[in-house]
Amino acid sequence: MSHNTFGHMFRVTTWGESHGPAIGAVVDGCPAGIPLSAADLQPWLDLRRPGTSRHVTPRQEPDQVRILSGVFEDDRTDGPVTTGTPISLMIENVDARSKDYSDIRDKWRPGHADFTYDMKYGVRDYRGGGRSSARETAMRVAAGGIARKVLGEDITIRAALIQIGERSIDRARWNWDEVANNPFFCPDAETASLWEADMDQLRRDGSSTGGIVEVVVSGLPAGWGAPIYAKLDSEIAAAMMTINAVKGVEIGAGFASAALRGETAADEMQMGEDGAQFRSNHNGGVLGGISTGQDLVVRFAVKPTSSIRVPRDTLDRSYEETQIVTHGRHDPCVAIRAVPVGEAMAALVLADQKLRHEAQAAW
Amino acid sequence: MSHNTFGHMFRVTTWGESHGPAIGAVVDGCPAGIPLSAADLQPWLDLRRPGTSRHVTPRQEPDQVRILSGVFEDDRTDGPVTTGTPISLMIENVDARSKDYSDIRDKWRPGHADFTYDMKYGVRDYRGGGRSSARETAMRVAAGGIARKVLGEDITIRAALIQIGERSIDRARWNWDEVANNPFFCPDAETASLWEADMDQLRRDGSSTGGIVEVVVSGLPAGWGAPIYAKLDSEIAAAMMTINAVKGVEIGAGFASAALRGETAADEMQMGEDGAQFRSNHNGGVLGGISTGQDLVVRFAVKPTSSIRVPRDTLDRSYEETQIVTHGRHDPCVAIRAVPVGEAMAALVLADQKLRHEAQAAW
Amino acid sequence: MSHNTFGHMFRVTTWGESHGPAIGAVVDGCPAGIPLSAADLQPWLDLRRPGTSRHVTPRQEPDQVRILSGVFEDDRTDGPVTTGTPISLMIENVDARSKDYSDIRDKWRPGHADFTYDMKYGVRDYRGGGRSSARETAMRVAAGGIARKVLGEDITIRAALIQIGERSIDRARWNWDEVANNPFFCPDAETASLWEADMDQLRRDGSSTGGIVEVVVSGLPAGWGAPIYAKLDSEIAAAMMTINAVKGVEIGAGFASAALRGETAADEMQMGEDGAQFRSNHNGGVLGGISTGQDLVVRFAVKPTSSIRVPRDTLDRSYEETQIVTHGRHDPCVAIRAVPVGEAMAALVLADQKLRHEAQAAW
Amino acid sequence: MSHNTFGHMFRVTTWGESHGPAIGAVVDGCPAGIPLSAADLQPWLDLRRPGTSRHVTPRQEPDQVRILSGVFEDDRTDGPVTTGTPISLMIENVDARSKDYSDIRDKWRPGHADFTYDMKYGVRDYRGGGRSSARETAMRVAAGGIARKVLGEDITIRAALIQIGERSIDRARWNWDEVANNPFFCPDAETASLWEADMDQLRRDGSSTGGIVEVVVSGLPAGWGAPIYAKLDSEIAAAMMTINAVKGVEIGAGFASAALRGETAADEMQMGEDGAQFRSNHNGGVLGGISTGQDLVVRFAVKPTSSIRVPRDTLDRSYEETQIVTHGRHDPCVAIRAVPVGEAMAALVLADQKLRHEAQAAW
Repeated sequence: MSHNTFGHMFRVTTWGESHGPAIGAVVDGCPAGIPLSAADLQPWLDLRRPGTSRHVTPRQEPDQVRILSGVFEDDRTDGPVTTGTPISLMIENVDARSKDYSDIRDKWRPGHADFTYDMKYGVRDYRGGGRSSARETAMRVAAGGIARKVLGEDITIRAALIQIGERSIDRARWNWDEVANNPFFCPDAETASLWEADMDQLRRDGSSTGGIVEVVVSGLPAGWGAPIYAKLDSEIAAAMMTINAVKGVEIGAGFASAALRGETAADEMQMGEDGAQFRSNHNGGVLGGISTGQDLVVRFAVKPTSSIRVPRDTLDRSYEETQIVTHGRHDPCVAIRAVPVGEAMAALVLADQKLRHEAQAAW
Repeated sequence: MSHNTFGHMFRVTTWGESHGPAIGAVVDGCPAGIPLSAADLQPWLDLRRPGTSRHVTPRQEPDQVRILSGVFEDDRTDGPVTTGTPISLMIENVDARSKDYSDIRDKWRPGHADFTYDMKYGVRDYRGGGRSSARETAMRVAAGGIARKVLGEDITIRAALIQIGERSIDRARWNWDEVANNPFFCPDAETASLWEADMDQLRRDGSSTGGIVEVVVSGLPAGWGAPIYAKLDSEIAAAMMTINAVKGVEIGAGFASAALRGETAADEMQMGEDGAQFRSNHNGGVLGGISTGQDLVVRFAVKPTSSIRVPRDTLDRSYEETQIVTHGRHDPCVAIRAVPVGEAMAALVLADQKLRHEAQAAW
Repeated sequence: MSHNTFGHMFRVTTWGESHGPAIGAVVDGCPAGIPLSAADLQPWLDLRRPGTSRHVTPRQEPDQVRILSGVFEDDRTDGPVTTGTPISLMIENVDARSKDYSDIRDKWRPGHADFTYDMKYGVRDYRGGGRSSARETAMRVAAGGIARKVLGEDITIRAALIQIGERSIDRARWNWDEVANNPFFCPDAETASLWEADMDQLRRDGSSTGGIVEVVVSGLPAGWGAPIYAKLDSEIAAAMMTINAVKGVEIGAGFASAALRGETAADEMQMGEDGAQFRSNHNGGVLGGISTGQDLVVRFAVKPTSSIRVPRDTLDRSYEETQIVTHGRHDPCVAIRAVPVGEAMAALVLADQKLRHEAQAAW
Repeated sequence: MSHNTFGHMFRVTTWGESHGPAIGAVVDGCPAGIPLSAADLQPWLDLRRPGTSRHVTPRQEPDQVRILSGVFEDDRTDGPVTTGTPISLMIENVDARSKDYSDIRDKWRPGHADFTYDMKYGVRDYRGGGRSSARETAMRVAAGGIARKVLGEDITIRAALIQIGERSIDRARWNWDEVANNPFFCPDAETASLWEADMDQLRRDGSSTGGIVEVVVSGLPAGWGAPIYAKLDSEIAAAMMTINAVKGVEIGAGFASAALRGETAADEMQMGEDGAQFRSNHNGGVLGGISTGQDLVVRFAVKPTSSIRVPRDTLDRSYEETQIVTHGRHDPCVAIRAVPVGEAMAALVLADQKLRHEAQAAW
């Protein structure tokens, strides 16, 4: 992955700053002949869109995506289809308020990329976080919608929020259908209602907290992945780690693997009705960097939003000690809106791996 | 990263199978004029070498690396130096025993890549695990030695084993000097002696267990990294996830970040004697994918060795149910020898990021 | 180069079809702090713009470029500067006439990419040639304007048309100042006036012809380039060959080298006032894929425009034999407008090589 | 292409210097299950091998290639086959004479890369030209042998020498069978015999001359290639330009296209027995960067060998004016041995494009 481009054969290049005129992406390498219109992408964007509940930022962005190139409809196609040429996506920034930016211009907000961007580039678009804002992830979600089309309907990518702050879900109550029933993408209705109260308290405190997202991909064939340095799990880890505020990624049993014994960790095999089966999935659907055909199971940890209303000590650009309070409109738990982003990143990795698999191994 | 090549400007391509005639690497893009001979690389290899204690595989491999190209000594240089052309490294496989491979040829060992390689490629070099063997990591360690030279002496990369099985070190007793004093790269002498007993029991049981490695890089300048899709932490995560048996990676507070509040997670800044300082390092030295100048702190989890002497259920290549017992010579805790590999991968990522930083930002 | 992205460290991704809503480019990897506004790019676009003389297509496109991201102006900068983040460029298509496309939809125009796009993708945006139209080169010219900024003012990139049809310039009359004085970018005023008549006759014939463009880069330092597979001349050749209708590229003496003897071809060296000098430049400023510090001299051949008013035999998409006459608005000699495109491609290659040189060799 | 790696999905990384212990290549991304042994590659190497006639360098190199990884033979395969893992190739340098290198150490040989390598790297392995020696091309020929296997037997890649110095072949006498009958790969027996005399005179003069190679690929399907910046002809041009001493590349009518009219240059189409046909091939088998299914026709120009026995003026590393005479063992016309190299580079480009075609367009 280079700079702002993700992927090898299915490639996504994103551009744009939080408070600039627009954000966009170019999706290159998409196979031709796939039905595609903006309406296919909008539902995914609507899941990530700000302003949908009191638990996320109230910024009002309709996030209407336009497709500017790479699709075409003629007398031989049933609606617009991809043409194999670059697909340009664009979303205009609507609610980038004209406001007083002097505080974030002059001070390095703790936990944000302000200091590091200044150290690297010497200049930064500070308005709303500029390029380092999570607003960029809207384009990943849009591009992820195209990736899903490349993967086809037999592959299902779902994600859920399984922890907010110190409170985790009860996995025994996991119900995918619940994910759409609460503002947290929570698969456990009871925990979701407890989170309501937790979040209300957090907002009153002017504070924030983190969370853990779990992504599960079903229907993957065995054999996708490209050892040694393009292993499926390595690319998944890289992808999730590029999401704003993510501090950890694990596959299958993940960090808990360290405490297991070999008898448990090495998933045994047997014959099932449809062929080879595994008796457990501690490896999360990947062995040697290649998919096993089981569910691909990924978890990633999101740190608390750094923008809080509690005053924090920091420095300004003149290296003077000062304090900062972040007002603005922010997510008290940015992990919530990271759920559809995690799904999208999984889709991008898999579409790219699929194309590479076709190239090397699927003749 | 593509296939078997790691890196963008500082690029490492490895080749070779566990029981083939040799393994090797080509390091491309290394700047010219850096003093380099095999003797510079050998100490790192000796740390990872098998057969050094009763707690690792008894396979006897001297792992003597040869440099076949890319260095030159003339009347103007003080010893051999890099020339800017590809550096070819090779280690001959010495102790690849002629043995009966029929068991691992015909059966898919649980937890190994046997099944997935067969699904992907339809053929595999099963001898000693072939390409999917951790033997490949010897070349990473050798290449990492070159990367360290590129980074220079102001940057220190150290790693330690902080957990084996269920037993973690006591961080209050962390002493880097202890790492060289025990066969576990353990920074806590007391825990190391407990691990001795744990490991002896494991061996008696014919079982295995996992572990957690922590890598710490000191002396990094602020400003390295390349958002959005080549973030420093994303590349670190990808790199660690390519190491055999790794199932999770985290930066700074990592998964524990999920339970923090914003006041804690967002490291405050102040002025120190040498300029800007952070009061804590929950972000592990990276903000927005760019180094802060603090220590880069990475942890990764290694699953138990899948090769154990306990009989396990599995399938053979004819999809018949069967059992397998792995005899051979194996590490009961492969996390131990992953310690120098983790250091090497950090070095490779950082050397590559350094060169890219020179390209874009260090004029 | 992958798909629609050009470059390694300084990367340009273009998108858009000739008669779609817009065309665009994302320039990624540009160093920060470079003053840049649309006004810097517009003059280069105006040179390539259609409708500027009777010898090029009368399509009316103002080709007004917008910069949508990657630049920022604050109280510390003197006007907008690059921020190191992706620079998104966009030009709206204005004069994409609503017209009857049925002929080019159904028939494969000889010499065009209609047949091959259909063979590859099974679908194509046939309006105005879609993605394979030379309209795409407008974005290269815009991106090339940014590349020139990266190169700085000491490096001058100039190009001229040295042959149209069978008539070449007289190199003895070469005068760079003349290039701006005629509609052909011709450095020889006398030949330019003869070309006027040639072109008028061509237009009356409803035919077209080809040409040869020469690009000369002055002020290059010695030492840029990256052997073996990223040689400066190899990348220049690749770059020019991506321009629509280009069928040949040569460096220095080029094809004439074949007939030389070693005594002539191997440019001798001597000391000059400013250091090492070459007595001739048969190698066109490149030895072993690395710049010598002399002028980089590149020529490329452009075939005749395939769109002509003379009826031609071809097939339609049902594989029926038919004839086609291209009406529309076309350049009778597309080599003319290829002159600024050739300059732009040289700029893109050199900016990318400069950054890579900084990375590997300029510490 | 980056540094010393060629290709995207089918990737070749070469290493080694002319007078070092060995040269080698790593071929990565090769599909699995392809029968492959060193005996498959040796015949191609024997064509390029030095010392085969009095018209090429008398250096004695058996050029015996070894395959060190990436192939495997078991009870299910009929001989060794590729496994999908990196194929490591190595040739030991045998006749790298211990000699007095002081002249080429201290002086910059005109027409060679000595000066530019010194400018870029500050150090160079001067023995036999080091990395910039054409000896590196042996590995391309070996890797090209693998690429041919990937392409399969329906695709034929042939090349011939069509000009030495000022003397061209008579295309009316072109006979592919003659290519193997003379030491020049000349398809015209009469011209070959004239070249014998030309070359004998050149050798007596201690001079050298250039030549032109034509590569023809038959049996290509329509639809291979990847616009815009990975066009088939662009990658072919890049590939040929990386060959030592090449100064120009053209496709189809090439530079002669400039003087054509559109009626001629735009190859008309008709129906033939096997489907769509072209009446001519001025475009050399490529339209819009994608193969047409016709023969791919490429020509490249090779400059005279720079190593000649005639004294030449130059500078030494202390910037003192001096003279140099190249003794050593050199090809008076390096274009001869460039013929199999040209074939190999075409094979590498096409194998890589084939895999990418499978990825994006061949579902």
